[in-house]
Amino acid sequence: MKTERIQLDHGAGGRASQDLVAATFIPALANPILTQLNDSALLEFEGVRLAMSTDSYVVDPIFFPGGDIGSLAVHGTVNDLAMRGAQPLYLTAGFILEEGLQLSDLERLVSSMAKAAQEAGVQVVAADTKVVEKGKADRIFINTAGVGTIPPEVDVAGQNARPGDVLLINGPMGDHGIAVLSTREGLSFQTAIESDSAALNGLVAAMLEASSKVHVLRDPTRGGVATALNEVAKQSGVGIRLEESSLPVRREVNAACEMLGLDPLYVANEGKVLVLVAPEDAELVLNTMRQHPLGQEACIIGEAVSEHPGRVVLQTGIGGRRIVDMLSGEQLPRIC
Amino acid sequence: MKTERIQLDHGAGGRASQDLVAATFIPALANPILTQLNDSALLEFEGVRLAMSTDSYVVDPIFFPGGDIGSLAVHGTVNDLAMRGAQPLYLTAGFILEEGLQLSDLERLVSSMAKAAQEAGVQVVAADTKVVEKGKADRIFINTAGVGTIPPEVDVAGQNARPGDVLLINGPMGDHGIAVLSTREGLSFQTAIESDSAALNGLVAAMLEASSKVHVLRDPTRGGVATALNEVAKQSGVGIRLEESSLPVRREVNAACEMLGLDPLYVANEGKVLVLVAPEDAELVLNTMRQHPLGQEACIIGEAVSEHPGRVVLQTGIGGRRIVDMLSGEQLPRIC
Repeated sequence: MKTERIQLDHGAGGRASQDLVAATFIPALANPILTQLNDSALLEFEGVRLAMSTDSYVVDPIFFPGGDIGSLAVHGTVNDLAMRGAQPLYLTAGFILEEGLQLSDLERLVSSMAKAAQEAGVQVVAADTKVVEKGKADRIFINTAGVGTIPPEVDVAGQNARPGDVLLINGPMGDHGIAVLSTREGLSFQTAIESDSAALNGLVAAMLEASSKVHVLRDPTRGGVATALNEVAKQSGVGIRLEESSLPVRREVNAACEMLGLDPLYVANEGKVLVLVAPEDAELVLNTMRQHPLGQEACIIGEAVSEHPGRVVLQTGIGGRRIVDMLSGEQLPRIC
Repeated sequence: MKTERIQLDHGAGGRASQDLVAATFIPALANPILTQLNDSALLEFEGVRLAMSTDSYVVDPIFFPGGDIGSLAVHGTVNDLAMRGAQPLYLTAGFILEEGLQLSDLERLVSSMAKAAQEAGVQVVAADTKVVEKGKADRIFINTAGVGTIPPEVDVAGQNARPGDVLLINGPMGDHGIAVLSTREGLSFQTAIESDSAALNGLVAAMLEASSKVHVLRDPTRGGVATALNEVAKQSGVGIRLEESSLPVRREVNAACEMLGLDPLYVANEGKVLVLVAPEDAELVLNTMRQHPLGQEACIIGEAVSEHPGRVVLQTGIGGRRIVDMLSGEQLPRIC
């Protein structure tokens, strides 16, 4: 989709984002590391393997139930590193502030970052602050980049799924997206929906310690579970079969999605991980996840198959099947 | 300066920026690495020493004589790594795009980044793109973070200046700031003033190869030479004496500064390095710099002294002296 101007779709994490990356960024910047398109890059320094990743955060509103742009900026990048099996260690933080931002809001966000970093066991080692005139940004944007070490025996990447791998998720889908959207739109539901924003590195470390047969880890953020699985299916050249009846969604998130015309499969998560693991270790990994505070609601939702490589297919309750494509347009702008 | 709202001063790189960092960021995020406040952080992994740094770029306009926000985003972070004596290797790039940005402009900027990265010998290994609604950003903001390896024998840091060290710079001051400001304000001068934006890692490597007695490297970006030297004076606990008659400024930059009421000592550079080197190696390092394309106009501009620790003093032509403080307010907003 080569349009003449940037549209909100280009930032939604779905097909338009991918097309932009493929048409504009990859041709110019291509190198063997970047073009792997994993959540983080793998770097080698004299035998030390590091993962490195970056994300900018522009979520609107900057405070939402269950988190804020400060904690999100820590969790998001920590998780991108963890998805490579890395132990996240160091973050950088780049702040773009709009003139007129309340200093008390900035202080609250920085405290929230600090708390999130401490809980995740990472240090913010370098930072930068820029200020732009009122009306040239939207209160605050935060970029974080991070590095972490990958233990020698770990080999987790989007390319590694194999037919037969069992697909797990650590809990229900869509909490983050619905929490942010509800706040932004001033919607209220009977039960408050909180973002699932959380650092997943502890959960991931527990899984990798329990099993050496975890092949793929992917956090379904922008574009949701559907988009993340489409990426993995393409990277690994496998098909992915999803069992509709197994897909976990909170009742209140489901109700909100119905009201808003959204499919929870496409709604952003910030504390969820999709896991593809060899079938013989699936039960072990599932139990390990359930013993962790962030995996108590873990469940099996599908499997990798040799049919329909590159595609995700949903097995519906009545024996039907439908193709689940990646997010094709802008579903929820500025969700992270 | 504890104000209730963020002001443009807070992003100018001078005293207001420092006060914000000291009052808001350091107390919350403090750790032994961050609080060294060098251009980049020093990290150790099983004997491998890495420098890591980040900067966000919000320069207005995004295209200016001698560069653009794309090349600047590469040069700036490469230089922050080089100031620690590191060999820059890998960058991440985070793009925040305003809805409506011309795709052709984005393509031009990404090409410019790619060219700058190739020339500097670094790879962009991870990237992220966000899009915000029209009016919520200003065309494009770019964050880059970078890592590089520090050779075992290298020990360059803002804390290392000693009385007697000779102070050098690799060429005239203020080109970048005046080039950007002229374009923004639609000023035209008889001679076009181009930004000095350049990757300094090659020049730095040549200096460090020639001498093991380079103590401090610092790139005088926002806040200019005056602010950078004040930072070094404080970090090292030395005084710095500047010789006014030795300070290099292009004639046309000087004229522009006079017209605009600016002091070149406070105007941003993006391809300059301040060097403090033991006196016995000063001539050697100076000659090494002059043999490099980016150091042909290198010169000695002062020295570190034991008097007035923490302060920078300018020796004027007529035998007078005046204290050169760091930038105290907003001189040039969005210069980088």
